[in-house]
Amino acid sequence: MSSVSHYQRKHKVTVVGSGNWGCAIAKIVAENTASSPSLFEQDVQMWVFEEKVEIPKDSRHYDPSSPLCQGQQNLTDVINQTHENIKYLPGVSLPHNLKANPSIVDAVQDSTILVFNLPHQFIVRTCEQIKGKILPYARGISCIKGVDVNEEGAHLFSETIGNTLGIYCGALSGANIANEVAREKWSESTIGYDTPHLDSKAPNADAVHFEHKDVSGQYSKTKLQPLPNEFPPVDHETLKTLFHRPYFHIRVNSDVAGVSLAGALKNIVALAAGWVDGLGWGDNAKAAIMRVGLLEMVKFGERFFGATIDNRTFTDESAGVADLITSCSSGRNFRCAKLSVQRKQHISEIEKTELNGQSLQGTLTAIEVNHFLKKQGTESDFPLFTACYHILQGTMQPEVIPSYIER
Amino acid sequence: MSSVSHYQRKHKVTVVGSGNWGCAIAKIVAENTASSPSLFEQDVQMWVFEEKVEIPKDSRHYDPSSPLCQGQQNLTDVINQTHENIKYLPGVSLPHNLKANPSIVDAVQDSTILVFNLPHQFIVRTCEQIKGKILPYARGISCIKGVDVNEEGAHLFSETIGNTLGIYCGALSGANIANEVAREKWSESTIGYDTPHLDSKAPNADAVHFEHKDVSGQYSKTKLQPLPNEFPPVDHETLKTLFHRPYFHIRVNSDVAGVSLAGALKNIVALAAGWVDGLGWGDNAKAAIMRVGLLEMVKFGERFFGATIDNRTFTDESAGVADLITSCSSGRNFRCAKLSVQRKQHISEIEKTELNGQSLQGTLTAIEVNHFLKKQGTESDFPLFTACYHILQGTMQPEVIPSYIER
Repeated sequence: MSSVSHYQRKHKVTVVGSGNWGCAIAKIVAENTASSPSLFEQDVQMWVFEEKVEIPKDSRHYDPSSPLCQGQQNLTDVINQTHENIKYLPGVSLPHNLKANPSIVDAVQDSTILVFNLPHQFIVRTCEQIKGKILPYARGISCIKGVDVNEEGAHLFSETIGNTLGIYCGALSGANIANEVAREKWSESTIGYDTPHLDSKAPNADAVHFEHKDVSGQYSKTKLQPLPNEFPPVDHETLKTLFHRPYFHIRVNSDVAGVSLAGALKNIVALAAGWVDGLGWGDNAKAAIMRVGLLEMVKFGERFFGATIDNRTFTDESAGVADLITSCSSGRNFRCAKLSVQRKQHISEIEKTELNGQSLQGTLTAIEVNHFLKKQGTESDFPLFTACYHILQGTMQPEVIPSYIER
Repeated sequence: MSSVSHYQRKHKVTVVGSGNWGCAIAKIVAENTASSPSLFEQDVQMWVFEEKVEIPKDSRHYDPSSPLCQGQQNLTDVINQTHENIKYLPGVSLPHNLKANPSIVDAVQDSTILVFNLPHQFIVRTCEQIKGKILPYARGISCIKGVDVNEEGAHLFSETIGNTLGIYCGALSGANIANEVAREKWSESTIGYDTPHLDSKAPNADAVHFEHKDVSGQYSKTKLQPLPNEFPPVDHETLKTLFHRPYFHIRVNSDVAGVSLAGALKNIVALAAGWVDGLGWGDNAKAAIMRVGLLEMVKFGERFFGATIDNRTFTDESAGVADLITSCSSGRNFRCAKLSVQRKQHISEIEKTELNGQSLQGTLTAIEVNHFLKKQGTESDFPLFTACYHILQGTMQPEVIPSYIER
């Protein structure tokens, strides 16, 4: 992709967020803009929530004679001078063309590709800050795992971003532990991106329409600004060029809902795998839970996102089966569920002692999904998800799972 | 299924083989014949290759005053008196209606359902011994894992049995470690059984024809004896009744080839997972190998068994994805491959030290599959399988796998 481009302009890329996963993705993106200079502007902006940090004495960047090591400094200054996020991703060198920026408005200005990678509870307020201040034809990729489920259905974080900003936004998800990706241990990931296309039936030829069938079966059309012709298209190939590395293999499909949903539902399955493993039932039983869970994930997708979702995202992609496997091997949900059986404590007790009171994503999702299934009257079609809910409520014991799912 | 049967006769069941997996399956079958007396004769015959054993002093069955504990005894006598296979499945109580029989001809006589569970190298000679001495309308289930691959294609053990005996034979395979199943730790399994059906176009209405498309794309028709009407049909429901237990969940489909093939190909993937894990690349990388491997398994099935195989056997069933997961967690192929990287030894060295010189199924299958792919000229379509072959040959290092499969 380093061949000469036929396009007059290049994409400017901004990463919104700079935690460990944000920095790992920003590192990848900046490596790729540097190696594809015909498609991308070399410098990548990374918005950093500014805070004061101090370079610890055992850091390789500590130099008592340096002004940077005199007391508290801005995190952005430290990142831009040491090329390391010493607070959230210590020990990993970031590319020199990755620029930390404390102003989100400045960071996103003139960018055609916005990569969102921040905790989901900050999405709305962050988007509100840049609404109307981005290029109207920018495109987004959300690296935020999961979906927002309530009684009415599942809402994709990529949709929240897209709707708030009036842009199209896809999603990236996969079997990716941030610290391993940052250290260039090989992994894979999936991008769901349903490239917006000109609707020939649209009254205004300038309008790009994007169709999406939501959980209620309604099609919604969003009017988007077309990307000016001077830019290379933001399509599957361009996205692969931006995210694929020798140590981070990317497959791109058009199934944003599947990619996002898989990343949420697998956490429920990981709880069940942890409980069963905690009982000492062995690898056969754990594999059985994962198989049953995968089928319920597929069924959930088919039932409630039938027209938009592709089953193969669950069964074939990193965002599906591979992320499920990783989550059921070493993920937080799995580990805490396993401990809860071994210690004969409710999982909320384990959250307190092991996670400093943070909530597991799996327990939240299991409850949200159950409320949704109850409202739809379809709990009994998802016996494993339903068993997880009952176990969390304390009204069922993990030992009962096999007989409960046997219907 | 314990309701009164409308049929005049019951099925007699024989298990051919009595190793640890043979005894685990025989235990299940005998438990189920006892609980469905309207469908099955209660007593289950189990053919045991006779040998002399001595009840050890630390056995719960040791009683110095018992004649059974005076020196060497027949294994069949010990099994029938202690209801335990003290040599191959010590510590597990077998049902009293399971009868060990040293005569294979006597054991299979008058049986309508024959369950084969013995090492694959004994299949042909065992079948030759009972050829013409079984009921011509008997039906078989092979619990022998895997397939026999050569340059011409893959041959199913169930077909070898069926063709040798002139009967129809299905297959059972899944994420099943014999000792865990025998100890009633919950697991799942898959039965592939394409119920023979009367071919209305057949010249002789007494003939049941069974169609099978082999690897060359040719359809072969086998003329089978129809089961007399006095017997309950040997269909998916009857097989589920015979094999399903609260601790051993069964799903039955019609995909004998898929069930068998998955059990062979997953061993190749387990080698690759072991190598990558041995490199210390973490859970993301291992999950990536499993995902890529699963897709190559599906592709292999589609390409060479297109008309007969159902992709969902690989992605949805215990014989597919679940067995793959178990094999890549704690299976022999995985463990030996991992050790070979950690100790910087060729896997054949590990076989010598860890397996007393026994060969791993995965290494044999990887080589056989590669010879077949070479002959078909399709090695490059199966980069992971091909990489495994090259690593076994010593012409590639495991570190290269990611770049090799990236096409």
